[in-house]
Amino acid sequence: MMKIREELLAMKKNSYANGDFDIPEGSMDCTEGVNPYGCPEEVLAVFRQIRLEEIINYPHDVKVYEAVCDYWSDLASLEKDNIMLTDGSIAAIYIVNNLFAQKGAKVLGVAPQFSDYVSNARLLGMNYRYVALDRADRYKFDVNALLAQITDDLAAVYLDNPNNPTGQMITAGEIEMVLRRAKAKGVCVILDEAYGDFVSKRESAMQLMDEYENLIVLRTLSKGFGMAGIRAGYIAASKELIGFMSQITNPYAVGQMSRRMMAAALDNAYRLERDTQEFASAKVKVRRVIGENIKMAATDDRAPIFLLYHKDPTVDLYRLLVENGIVAVPGSAFDAIDNNCVRVRLSSEEDFPQYLKLLARAEVAAGQAGKTKSI
Amino acid sequence: MMKIREELLAMKKNSYANGDFDIPEGSMDCTEGVNPYGCPEEVLAVFRQIRLEEIINYPHDVKVYEAVCDYWSDLASLEKDNIMLTDGSIAAIYIVNNLFAQKGAKVLGVAPQFSDYVSNARLLGMNYRYVALDRADRYKFDVNALLAQITDDLAAVYLDNPNNPTGQMITAGEIEMVLRRAKAKGVCVILDEAYGDFVSKRESAMQLMDEYENLIVLRTLSKGFGMAGIRAGYIAASKELIGFMSQITNPYAVGQMSRRMMAAALDNAYRLERDTQEFASAKVKVRRVIGENIKMAATDDRAPIFLLYHKDPTVDLYRLLVENGIVAVPGSAFDAIDNNCVRVRLSSEEDFPQYLKLLARAEVAAGQAGKTKSI
Repeated sequence: MMKIREELLAMKKNSYANGDFDIPEGSMDCTEGVNPYGCPEEVLAVFRQIRLEEIINYPHDVKVYEAVCDYWSDLASLEKDNIMLTDGSIAAIYIVNNLFAQKGAKVLGVAPQFSDYVSNARLLGMNYRYVALDRADRYKFDVNALLAQITDDLAAVYLDNPNNPTGQMITAGEIEMVLRRAKAKGVCVILDEAYGDFVSKRESAMQLMDEYENLIVLRTLSKGFGMAGIRAGYIAASKELIGFMSQITNPYAVGQMSRRMMAAALDNAYRLERDTQEFASAKVKVRRVIGENIKMAATDDRAPIFLLYHKDPTVDLYRLLVENGIVAVPGSAFDAIDNNCVRVRLSSEEDFPQYLKLLARAEVAAGQAGKTKSI
Repeated sequence: MMKIREELLAMKKNSYANGDFDIPEGSMDCTEGVNPYGCPEEVLAVFRQIRLEEIINYPHDVKVYEAVCDYWSDLASLEKDNIMLTDGSIAAIYIVNNLFAQKGAKVLGVAPQFSDYVSNARLLGMNYRYVALDRADRYKFDVNALLAQITDDLAAVYLDNPNNPTGQMITAGEIEMVLRRAKAKGVCVILDEAYGDFVSKRESAMQLMDEYENLIVLRTLSKGFGMAGIRAGYIAASKELIGFMSQITNPYAVGQMSRRMMAAALDNAYRLERDTQEFASAKVKVRRVIGENIKMAATDDRAPIFLLYHKDPTVDLYRLLVENGIVAVPGSAFDAIDNNCVRVRLSSEEDFPQYLKLLARAEVAAGQAGKTKSI
């Protein structure tokens, strides 16, 4: 018998990020939280200029650190040693969890939230507990419920903002309340802003970085910037915390080409605002074709993801959507909700008319499903 | 006080992979173990064909798995589920260590060997012990000394082959002896073949994969293939072990462009043999200009790295080489040796005449250093 860690033997990871959703012919794939409108063209131009030497040598490019610091310069005084590059923000989660992963270390979150964080914390032997978002209140984040749970036995609090799966925002004011209480209790706060490029950077927790040494912010180029294929992200935190993290990883995360493209994208972020305005108008249209039977959880309209749930908690909305041509992420991939809930992403601009039709058809079918149930 | 893991608070990582060697003007940089002759041109051609969609979406390319399985098909019957892609083999080390990282889990290696493995094992709370290679025997690997230490309290044995820093090979026969004994004791054997592309694939432990379920092989495209900038590597192991590893990471390691280039490189591996013949001839020339005062540890001439040490164990050879224009990896970056030893890499073909001159000059200076000491 091999001596594998006991958590790995005992537990199965709950994740939708396994890349094997079955998308039937004619169905729409609304699973991945990427920018449905794509990435800045400038990025491809940079990409075309890469030289052979940049493939051969270990990535030593430091301009990308400057690009990150510049990007945030009006909100935080970051330096290179406040930044750790990571292969997407999912790699950032593994590194950050490793900071705290003593057996039984306690971490607190809300549910639902990004399930790969939760699974990883548990698989590293940590004790994860959550404040469940209230269905009766459309799964709206409740800062007071969270604050009440921040006790000094915690190692960390994890929040995704915008939240995955709902796409809702925690305000900077609420984040500061969490940071302040956590700081008083010696607790770190991990703000996973993977979806943060869909909202204004002025709403990011980054603006609190200079004041709160217990703050860790995760960002990625995979979502808003539409560059999931290049695996680029970063962690921002105090130099002390980044120093600890650098002990458990290496400086070669994010390949050289990806560093170049990441820097180009940060310099061309202007395009994102146009996208998010379009998303907001698309989400209003989505709400017009559903609502009677299929409800939308609290959300920020600029984020292209949202959580749908059937008004009858016994209806399997995931299956209903699949039957109506929309493949999205089942609620069972998250803590505290089931397949009565589904995380859906907006479609591309081109597919949007068809997408709305499918949702309208699903809403009608959802009315039938509700009736069948009540008979 | 924040609740950081105790090992991180107590320990400092010993690694030369921090990317900040100071290379004075006019000195030669012999620090990184990349292929000094570069990567196949075919790789760049593939790179130029990448499309915007491949940047936007999460990497789902599976052809790269086929390329890996095809590459090994005459030696092992690998399938996709025997393979895990990793961002270089250093990321593979972190994942594999995480399989076994219970507090106090015991791992065995030899010293010197790749120090990032050792540091990471210790920083994850594991108990690493080693069999020291014998200086009197030119640091030659001794399989019997290792076998005697494989006891059933071990979780894993870690071997790098070719060994880093010496560049010496453990034969397939010796590896099988290790695997057989380890299997009997319920111990996994991690074969880190980061430098494995410098020797024939027929010498790889991969040929034992079908027989030994306790075998884990790590490979990278960073070294022999000369593609450190794209961060591509992989783990091969039993489906069961890969299944455990997939619990603690995600399927999006290695970006889409890198996957495409990795597949192209594996299809164009013919070039490597030419390089390694050149390395072998270069290493013979190196030995001709040193030897009296500066010794070369046991090595395989096809690998472009080797360990030099001064015959007088009190001489700081690292400083002596720096003073003579050669910046390489100090012995202190490894367990069980000090700066009397230096890991040196061959230069590019272009720089080779100058490189030999610097080494010849160092050999003369080394004679002086020995004399000064003995007075």
